[in-house]
Amino acid sequence: MTTLVLGHKSPDTDSTGSPIIWAWYLSEVAGTPAKPVLLGEPNTEAAFVLKHWDLSKPEIISDVGAGDKVVIVDTNNPAELPPSINEAAIQGIIDHHMLVGGLKTKSPIDITIRPLACTATIMHDLIGDKLASAPRGIKGAMLSCILSDTLEFRSPTTTPHDRAVAEKLAADLGVNLGDLATAMFEAKSDVSAFSDAELLRMDSKEYNVAGKELRVSVLETTAPKLVLDRKDSLMASMVDVAKEDGADQVLLFVVDILKEEATLLVPNDLVKQMAEASFGCAVSGDTVVLPGIMSRKKQIIPALKL
Amino acid sequence: MTTLVLGHKSPDTDSTGSPIIWAWYLSEVAGTPAKPVLLGEPNTEAAFVLKHWDLSKPEIISDVGAGDKVVIVDTNNPAELPPSINEAAIQGIIDHHMLVGGLKTKSPIDITIRPLACTATIMHDLIGDKLASAPRGIKGAMLSCILSDTLEFRSPTTTPHDRAVAEKLAADLGVNLGDLATAMFEAKSDVSAFSDAELLRMDSKEYNVAGKELRVSVLETTAPKLVLDRKDSLMASMVDVAKEDGADQVLLFVVDILKEEATLLVPNDLVKQMAEASFGCAVSGDTVVLPGIMSRKKQIIPALKL
Repeated sequence: MTTLVLGHKSPDTDSTGSPIIWAWYLSEVAGTPAKPVLLGEPNTEAAFVLKHWDLSKPEIISDVGAGDKVVIVDTNNPAELPPSINEAAIQGIIDHHMLVGGLKTKSPIDITIRPLACTATIMHDLIGDKLASAPRGIKGAMLSCILSDTLEFRSPTTTPHDRAVAEKLAADLGVNLGDLATAMFEAKSDVSAFSDAELLRMDSKEYNVAGKELRVSVLETTAPKLVLDRKDSLMASMVDVAKEDGADQVLLFVVDILKEEATLLVPNDLVKQMAEASFGCAVSGDTVVLPGIMSRKKQIIPALKL
Repeated sequence: MTTLVLGHKSPDTDSTGSPIIWAWYLSEVAGTPAKPVLLGEPNTEAAFVLKHWDLSKPEIISDVGAGDKVVIVDTNNPAELPPSINEAAIQGIIDHHMLVGGLKTKSPIDITIRPLACTATIMHDLIGDKLASAPRGIKGAMLSCILSDTLEFRSPTTTPHDRAVAEKLAADLGVNLGDLATAMFEAKSDVSAFSDAELLRMDSKEYNVAGKELRVSVLETTAPKLVLDRKDSLMASMVDVAKEDGADQVLLFVVDILKEEATLLVPNDLVKQMAEASFGCAVSGDTVVLPGIMSRKKQIIPALKL
């Protein structure tokens, strides 16, 4: 039986590239037949990365079957995984997020979670010397995942090890790391094809803060104006998205990768109150700029309160 | 703040030795002040191991405080951990059991779970070359943990890697592995000082099987007669222990390490039915011998049904 390697819903570059990397490792090095699958369309950056490194887009699946062999990467959160995930035969987990609890296995499996910026960095370490035999596309995917998750080392989640691995890979591949990152971020910033609801859900995760169910959406971009020009319709759309997704509120942080700041949309008093309590800022209009804020995991979620 | 390194309640050799090993690694190699603690009196084998390798008995604690830095080893099950574990600042988890879910962290941490027989084997791999600088007691604890958890390589949980690590450590330490194991198992088999209730709880874990809450107790011994001579009072005691611990039934498997078989006590029809359904045996009296059964994790729990 082929092992399915999958990341989280709404796949970004790490959740698209890491399954490809690990399925390569399992199939070609460990001798375990495996294939990467996606839980949705890759975002525009991930689509660019696939094309850039000449990688096939993995099949998109909506669920896993009971007993399917599955390796989970880049998440350990059942809410971000297929509905039947706990019926599958989970073989392993490789992740870099906080442990949320909820995944269960029937026997001991391989689990590696590390406080690094990127799943692909952990895979680099697990693969070790065998990486030398990897095709260019696998090393390229690994480099792109790290550039994406670290926002080219700007994000505070970046560790010296993530950076060292990316620089080593770039040298090995003979690519200019800055040029690649710029092209990736430009691809991610092209949001013209997406509806407001799609933008709000694109890179969003659900959290419960002080009894409120929040959908915390982060759009990383080098062209924040493209998003902020749409703020009125985005704020109107938040109401419907929250309702459909069973959330109390959608929070949208527009992260300016180059200026290293986030702009939070403030559609109502709840968000205003939350912004002021969480970030110690004073909100006057319907947006507030949060200097230095780039990481949902490291800066936004730990700060959120009411 | 000193990091507390702790294993599971009712500490056996691995849950006593592994915290000592990891606290040494954190303090002496990683530069993070750490100390091992226990969640109860070590069992007789673990007490022998401490004495044999001239290691101090770690402090016994009954709970952790909110915000305490904690590394959890040899379990990921909140039911086997201090009541306030999810209020602590969990720094890492090193384990070799199935993922049960329930532990949560506030940020990404180091988690290493491997399908190996023993936590100490995983630590051996994580410590790597630095183990050369470990004092004799640390290497000795590591060896003893592996001999204990593998029942000197007899348990089906044993992997070639566990065995190779143990043999390397024994050679390094210049000790006869078989003699050490024999002395450890003799220490474990001396159950004369324990009441029936203590014996039933000594190495027991709770599981829900077909809606029944079971306390599954395993006594590994080279002298099964010492336990089986007490079977009438042990079966009488099961009723009280089950009641006090909120379980429907206590199952006691007496594992004969040398004969590589288990004897299950059969106090009533529920256990009879469960034994026949789970192990395909025919039960006539108040005990049943299960040839080859040695591992709760690998053989008993996966088989249990009604």
